[in-house]
Amino acid sequence: MNDPPLLDVLNGKKVLRRPVWFMRQAGRYLPEYREVRARAGSFLNLCYAPDLAAEVTLQPLARFDLDAAILFADILVVPQAMGLGLAFEEGEGPVVEKISGLERVGALRPLDEAKEVGLICETVKAAKERLAANVALIGFCGAPWTVASYMIGGGGESGREVARAVAAEGPPWFDLLMERLIDASVTYLVRQIDAGVDVVQIFDSWAGDLPGYLQEKIIALPIGRIVKGLRDQRPGIPVIVFARGAGAGHRRIGEATKAECLGVETSMPLDWARDQLAGSHVIQGNLDPLLVECGGDALTRGIEQVAAALPRDRHIFNLGHGMRPGTPPEHVDLVIKHLRKLDG
Amino acid sequence: MNDPPLLDVLNGKKVLRRPVWFMRQAGRYLPEYREVRARAGSFLNLCYAPDLAAEVTLQPLARFDLDAAILFADILVVPQAMGLGLAFEEGEGPVVEKISGLERVGALRPLDEAKEVGLICETVKAAKERLAANVALIGFCGAPWTVASYMIGGGGESGREVARAVAAEGPPWFDLLMERLIDASVTYLVRQIDAGVDVVQIFDSWAGDLPGYLQEKIIALPIGRIVKGLRDQRPGIPVIVFARGAGAGHRRIGEATKAECLGVETSMPLDWARDQLAGSHVIQGNLDPLLVECGGDALTRGIEQVAAALPRDRHIFNLGHGMRPGTPPEHVDLVIKHLRKLDG
Repeated sequence: MNDPPLLDVLNGKKVLRRPVWFMRQAGRYLPEYREVRARAGSFLNLCYAPDLAAEVTLQPLARFDLDAAILFADILVVPQAMGLGLAFEEGEGPVVEKISGLERVGALRPLDEAKEVGLICETVKAAKERLAANVALIGFCGAPWTVASYMIGGGGESGREVARAVAAEGPPWFDLLMERLIDASVTYLVRQIDAGVDVVQIFDSWAGDLPGYLQEKIIALPIGRIVKGLRDQRPGIPVIVFARGAGAGHRRIGEATKAECLGVETSMPLDWARDQLAGSHVIQGNLDPLLVECGGDALTRGIEQVAAALPRDRHIFNLGHGMRPGTPPEHVDLVIKHLRKLDG
Repeated sequence: MNDPPLLDVLNGKKVLRRPVWFMRQAGRYLPEYREVRARAGSFLNLCYAPDLAAEVTLQPLARFDLDAAILFADILVVPQAMGLGLAFEEGEGPVVEKISGLERVGALRPLDEAKEVGLICETVKAAKERLAANVALIGFCGAPWTVASYMIGGGGESGREVARAVAAEGPPWFDLLMERLIDASVTYLVRQIDAGVDVVQIFDSWAGDLPGYLQEKIIALPIGRIVKGLRDQRPGIPVIVFARGAGAGHRRIGEATKAECLGVETSMPLDWARDQLAGSHVIQGNLDPLLVECGGDALTRGIEQVAAALPRDRHIFNLGHGMRPGTPPEHVDLVIKHLRKLDG
């Protein structure tokens, strides 16, 4: 048996090598990604073209000595699969068809029959078939709050504020939307697991938008219900929760969700994470993606600081945020090689 | 003796009323502010017109039952007093003349003779004379990191990234710039204290930009040196440190700076702040300014959540970020009245 080191760490085993992968490791900073993306014609076409999406999923593995591939898809596949419009404008963020009110939220489609989910699962299968046995395949979805934020506000800074105001007001349709997203997330992740992913990550990218007193209701409990739903239906699949910007709130989120692993943002001091979180959770993160773009001594020191803070059996080395489009690929290679050297 | 409740809380005394003030309580959301601002011609003219700046400092006290006035000025007075160019474009953020290199940093002027500092201190005197005895006057400066961030990057999102990359690289000129800003901050705050402020707040608005492993070097230790400088020269003046976005890092920042009070951002769960910080520091914050703009039940609940989390002897009620320009003034009044009712 030769489990991927990433799975070993998530399963509480000792490892000889610290697992490493990068959020947005398949993306615009890679010329081979841009080539496939151009062939696909648009970002969404690429998400829904299983052969191309699988190719893109695997691209970083061909270049770098990584411990995981992450499914190439987008967290906004879920609202689209539920029936909402979605567009990605070049150079802009995504634009989601906005929703509010009990009637419209009640009319959202359940995910079971959605063709979008079927296409994503084909990507999973195609990627899994071609992946080396010692590399884990990570599936993912957006957390209910982050996905709801797009569905309520449509995206963008001002849309996030609209969503935050609704979350604080908490009308019945907001609660219903969160319920629907919890159910949809479980359905979606179970489908990904059945198609072949070894691990799932739940991205709460806008966790830091919420006031502290809403973290429990809107971040911790909904994600906890997803984790429980997965445990009931597909026990043994580890879960990574990345509630970006939750700060000291990661502690409660870890307790409430019982996820195997907590991703932490770049601003998190890892000695605190080690003392307060790593006893019960593997920690994932949190190298500053800006340093990977810039390179040089600052990058080397950043790698060393992050690696030194956590024992390799309790750490998945990653960024604190997604890879930046301007990152030179050779800097990514340097990160991995320097990390391997440090871990000797 | 009738000390302002804000000072009593900072001095560890029991109070009958929970002190409250708001960051940017003197500002664009008030029509009387906009009127004076128009008379002054520009934001910077207003900062350097002591009569008008004092008037603006006191405006919110005429409307609201607040426990403190905060000096009307800007954190970028310091780089300007050190000799750098500064402009505020309408609707944009500030634009600071950028600086780098040992030679230019070494040539920055010390603050002692700066006419800008003299003008700000005249504002302090004029405001203090007209302020009721039970209301505290708060002076302030930007923390070295936040001010350096503007001086290095010039301001704006991309300027903040440039500064963060420099901070991570840590060239000798960066260290010298931080030294110069520590000295300038002590000089500036001592002058404000001598002119009449009762309390000082150090704003590290961009604390959350830094990777966790740099918080000690770039946030905690420099601010700690300012606090020590103040204690040596003007003992008895309490200090509030607001390292916005430091998350779990507030703990170390509190230990290293020994500030009487820690301001916390909106995303901070206050039960954590109560358990981990409030034993040794008064907590200031952290109502979401968006809720004050929006009003309604969400605002009422927000006030209740924030107030319930902390005992009134260990809390200065405030926002987690500055007042938004679109805030209806009557919502501000409502916050204070609801808070008084809660504390009954």
